[in-house]
Amino acid sequence: MAKKKEAKTLDELFLETLKDIYFAEKKILTTLPKLKKAAQSEELAEAFEKHRDETEGQIERLEQVFELIEEKAKGKSCPAILGMVEEGEEIIKEFKGSPALDAGLLAAAQAVEHYEISRYGTLKAWARELGMNEAARLLDETLKEEMKTDQLLSKIAESAINQEAEAA
Amino acid sequence: MAKKKEAKTLDELFLETLKDIYFAEKKILTTLPKLKKAAQSEELAEAFEKHRDETEGQIERLEQVFELIEEKAKGKSCPAILGMVEEGEEIIKEFKGSPALDAGLLAAAQAVEHYEISRYGTLKAWARELGMNEAARLLDETLKEEMKTDQLLSKIAESAINQEAEAA
Repeated sequence: MAKKKEAKTLDELFLETLKDIYFAEKKILTTLPKLKKAAQSEELAEAFEKHRDETEGQIERLEQVFELIEEKAKGKSCPAILGMVEEGEEIIKEFKGSPALDAGLLAAAQAVEHYEISRYGTLKAWARELGMNEAARLLDETLKEEMKTDQLLSKIAESAINQEAEAA
Repeated sequence: MAKKKEAKTLDELFLETLKDIYFAEKKILTTLPKLKKAAQSEELAEAFEKHRDETEGQIERLEQVFELIEEKAKGKSCPAILGMVEEGEEIIKEFKGSPALDAGLLAAAQAVEHYEISRYGTLKAWARELGMNEAARLLDETLKEEMKTDQLLSKIAESAINQEAEAA
């Protein structure tokens, strides 16, 4: 860990953070089908399925960024995403059969989206600073997708589901 | 955990999520002085100090929300925030003495801010659905503070620090 301490620069921070989000996206890819299965409303299940497909594309984009910087695509364990996935699994267990389950799934998914938005925002800014315009473009494409997903989840949350949970 | 499974409603989801963010804020309160100590630029150190003071107020607001729903203010371990704090501590260790340290600290802090933004956004929406207007107002106040902090961190990140890290 202390190896190369003297030389650590923004390039290395970029690479480490890229590995962090690559690991996170792969974890999300395997988690979304569980969320879809748990979802009570058709609308939410569809949103999770759509986002699973998007996540595949986002992983491919990350692999392109690894290629651009001539590094092997490799994940690095990301305790934050593991914690968020754990919280989502707790919700599934604790709220199974409850009318508030979907509201809980939405909250868990939005926490993950916000984590990703922060990561892609940071990576895009660093790519620009490092003069890697193509990487910045790819990261921005995913950033916009994540923001759109978050908005979609907010819309679903604010409409049917919360009211349903409250009425029950 | 399976106790009261049948009865779990949005009220309970609200209370559990309130406990989650209460735990998170207390963890953040003890972490910010470490970030301040590690920060290289005066501007960033000041931003962390300012946010530590704000966090105290945010904790008080959460305690007011607990009071409004007549529950004891109590945290519930939040694996997501523990994961993010762990990532921040790794950055401090791995990038100590590196010109990219501040960029890394900023990224870690912004991940936390986004987690909080998502939590307060969710809690505020639920408070409204549940007809708890005073709680919604308190949560919105903190939400706005967190968004402002995130913007401030973005501003610091995009100005001096990234360029400094790159130049080194």
